Amino acid sequence: MAEARARRRGGGGAARRAERTAVSIETAKFIERNIPNFEVLNDEALEIIEHNAETVLEEIGVNFVDNPAALERWRDVGADVRGERVHIPRGLARQLCSTAPSRFTQQARNPERNVEIGGKSLVLAPVYGPPFVRDIEGGRRYATIEDFRNFVKLGYMSKWLHHSGGTVCEPTDVAVNKRHLDMLHAHMTLSDKPFMGSVTEPIRAQHSVEMADILFGGLEDRTVMTSLVNINSPLTFDNVMMGALEVYAAANQASIVSPFIVGGAMAPVSVAGTLTQVLAEVLAGVSYSQMIRAGSPVIMGCFVTSIDMNSGAPTFGTPEASHITQGAGQLARRLGLPYRSGGSFCGSKLPDAQAGYETANSLNMALTAGVNFMLHSCGWLEGGLVSSYEKFVMDADQLGVLHHLAKGVSVDENAQAMDAIREVGPGGHYLGCAHTQANFKDAFWRSDLLDYKPFETWDEEGARDTQTLASLRVKKLLSDYQQPYLDPAISAALSDYVARKKAEEPDSYI
Amino acid sequence: MAEARARRRGGGGAARRAERTAVSIETAKFIERNIPNFEVLNDEALEIIEHNAETVLEEIGVNFVDNPAALERWRDVGADVRGERVHIPRGLARQLCSTAPSRFTQQARNPERNVEIGGKSLVLAPVYGPPFVRDIEGGRRYATIEDFRNFVKLGYMSKWLHHSGGTVCEPTDVAVNKRHLDMLHAHMTLSDKPFMGSVTEPIRAQHSVEMADILFGGLEDRTVMTSLVNINSPLTFDNVMMGALEVYAAANQASIVSPFIVGGAMAPVSVAGTLTQVLAEVLAGVSYSQMIRAGSPVIMGCFVTSIDMNSGAPTFGTPEASHITQGAGQLARRLGLPYRSGGSFCGSKLPDAQAGYETANSLNMALTAGVNFMLHSCGWLEGGLVSSYEKFVMDADQLGVLHHLAKGVSVDENAQAMDAIREVGPGGHYLGCAHTQANFKDAFWRSDLLDYKPFETWDEEGARDTQTLASLRVKKLLSDYQQPYLDPAISAALSDYVARKKAEEPDSYI
Repeated sequence: MAEARARRRGGGGAARRAERTAVSIETAKFIERNIPNFEVLNDEALEIIEHNAETVLEEIGVNFVDNPAALERWRDVGADVRGERVHIPRGLARQLCSTAPSRFTQQARNPERNVEIGGKSLVLAPVYGPPFVRDIEGGRRYATIEDFRNFVKLGYMSKWLHHSGGTVCEPTDVAVNKRHLDMLHAHMTLSDKPFMGSVTEPIRAQHSVEMADILFGGLEDRTVMTSLVNINSPLTFDNVMMGALEVYAAANQASIVSPFIVGGAMAPVSVAGTLTQVLAEVLAGVSYSQMIRAGSPVIMGCFVTSIDMNSGAPTFGTPEASHITQGAGQLARRLGLPYRSGGSFCGSKLPDAQAGYETANSLNMALTAGVNFMLHSCGWLEGGLVSSYEKFVMDADQLGVLHHLAKGVSVDENAQAMDAIREVGPGGHYLGCAHTQANFKDAFWRSDLLDYKPFETWDEEGARDTQTLASLRVKKLLSDYQQPYLDPAISAALSDYVARKKAEEPDSYI
Repeated sequence: MAEARARRRGGGGAARRAERTAVSIETAKFIERNIPNFEVLNDEALEIIEHNAETVLEEIGVNFVDNPAALERWRDVGADVRGERVHIPRGLARQLCSTAPSRFTQQARNPERNVEIGGKSLVLAPVYGPPFVRDIEGGRRYATIEDFRNFVKLGYMSKWLHHSGGTVCEPTDVAVNKRHLDMLHAHMTLSDKPFMGSVTEPIRAQHSVEMADILFGGLEDRTVMTSLVNINSPLTFDNVMMGALEVYAAANQASIVSPFIVGGAMAPVSVAGTLTQVLAEVLAGVSYSQMIRAGSPVIMGCFVTSIDMNSGAPTFGTPEASHITQGAGQLARRLGLPYRSGGSFCGSKLPDAQAGYETANSLNMALTAGVNFMLHSCGWLEGGLVSSYEKFVMDADQLGVLHHLAKGVSVDENAQAMDAIREVGPGGHYLGCAHTQANFKDAFWRSDLLDYKPFETWDEEGARDTQTLASLRVKKLLSDYQQPYLDPAISAALSDYVARKKAEEPDSYI
């Protein structure tokens, strides 16, 4: 028996108890899919949408707002620019996009945590952007820099999370014009996973590049940040986001060019219409990144929810959002671009059953849609208004399901298990057979959080629900957290940089 | 504006309030998929598994226990029978299975509720078998016939549920040898959806056929029941279940021939090994149904969970269960048989986030696995020990997601929405445009249960979680329930039959 062997090898009960209670800071390698993608659209549908997207670019055009240099660049490559409206001749955008790499490596300061984005990979990053946090004891409240640091620590401690993310919550107690410095400092010093840069002003993107240069001891064109550049759908590229993209592309840092769409508000209510607009917007945005620097890494993004036409609220985990996520993945692959979509999306106010259904719907669809970079893969609550402590660890645990689904099915001789079927025969049972003993440890994915106990045990222990179990896990992870090593000289240089930049201008809260 | 038109047409605010609060007893047509299936196995893997399954049948064989007539039938078709062990020569079972229809109609007493099982269809039926029920107020307790009737009523009232199911819970307050009569009577009189027959003794299957004959005014070979015939995995066919199958096949009633497997206990711990055993068992069981009556309708079943090797508990919504569900679907399609698998599976003791994640994982995988008949599609809790009132309506609501996912994506001219994109243009919004107004009512699936309200409204209304909202919905559905019309003569004949059969023997509780 495996257990008996373990006992002999050393430590006995105490060692096994220690193993059970120890918090692992192991990080799984990013996912490489060994399963097919789900193709919801046939070739004819894809060709119609691609044709229509080109029609949108040529006939309707896109606006580049308050950005004369961008308009000049578009003129230079042959677009028809009228005012701020850029009409892109059929075929030009697709041609410009062709210099973007289909797969790239984002380096982490710990090289073991490097991620590859594109092809069959899937890289998981946490929730991005909520102004509020929620936990079981404190309820819903504005997020602070302490919350931010806690979420970075939780991300660092989460086995199935490959990426530290960006604005894991908005630290509203720090001035708007300075909080990016504290956020970057947290990602760089409290975690050794890859991270995202600031996009809220071009100068903040520049600060991100300069801090990364300190952290990595000189960037030399290495890609060490992937940042989120949202498009003001429909068809509008503002100078703030484009200014950030310009900084990042020039420094060979990756941007996610991402339509942000609540269907029925920022795009047509139909799936095909939305996909047409998404593709047109991505073609224009990615083209622009390649005009700044051909070959700079860029990701096709697609953030799309449907809308509840009764209340006007965005809704999540819905079938239409799944169709769009799947269809956009097919468009990205035909364009040869890495693809960002999906997440732990839900509209629920609490980490309850609604959150579970909606989130699982979203996560499953993103896996089979061929997503390469999944922002918001854990911690999202209340339509993205809230970063939830409990949901962060609940979702992060579920990301293990995606890892194991992506492995696909082995049919090697061991997996065929013919000797086991022979050994057990009709009416027997497999628990003790040789094949089971040799394989049971890795055979089945096991949650580190969910309840698998007998009813009576569970009842005696307080009949705890998932949120309660998750709250305990949050506390344990934060109490077990240990900061990863960073060269003290680099650490000091980063702190100096942050202090210096903060001193350069007064606090602003707008 | 659509709203303005509605106002003019009549009723004004009162009518709209009535529309919002009315409980619909509309039932959706069974799903016809317009999306591809997910194929987790490639052809080589499928061929290996099929080859191995034939090896299992020929070399290891299957046991038909306490059933000399079955052994005789196997001898007659050319199997090598030694004791109770039946060795089936390679190719024989597949040949015998070929007379089973790939798609059949199960008739309901209301012809509008007929379902087709096979091909691209998906028919949804509720949870089957739990001895306990749970609701938010009463907690967990043994199920009674009153609970049973309540679940039949809830099933009747659930729009996305096509089928009334069978043992929606075990009515433990009725004698074991008589409860099938009360259960069938409830399905036949409280609902007009199709239902399942009893399988716990061959005589109870016979009673089911006789009651159906009364209900339908003579069966004349029409298929009006689909019943669940579990295999005692591994590789064992007991005389109780086979006796029921014999009754049903002879009467041209459908059986689901279904391995019941906790992986690692009743089958190998590997996916490929489990699929091999599942296929072998189904080939033998379906062959047997065709030996009773060639052409009788039969479904390939596959109930598989993984096991938590720490506690020995079955686990649900896991990646390995998904792989098996997907792979078995491919095997069923290659065999030309309708396929039963999937369900609202979870191990959670409560309808909480764990239940939501695990259930959504299971439902999504079953849809893309090509399942044709999904038993347990709502109401399953605690590994199948509990029928949950709240989870029944929560899951039944989520089944709407499957209906809309299965529709696939239209690319007709209206769906392309090019005029809308032209009308709105860069920087505009779609809420008021003509295309949105014409399409918004059907564009997006909308939950009838989940919370889509603004935070402040939700908070003022008591910050209710999903379970609380579901409890209200249960009460509303049961209070709004109205029994569907049934010819009083048939109703009286059914009651007479039940009374007569009950009087024939004393109560037994074992």
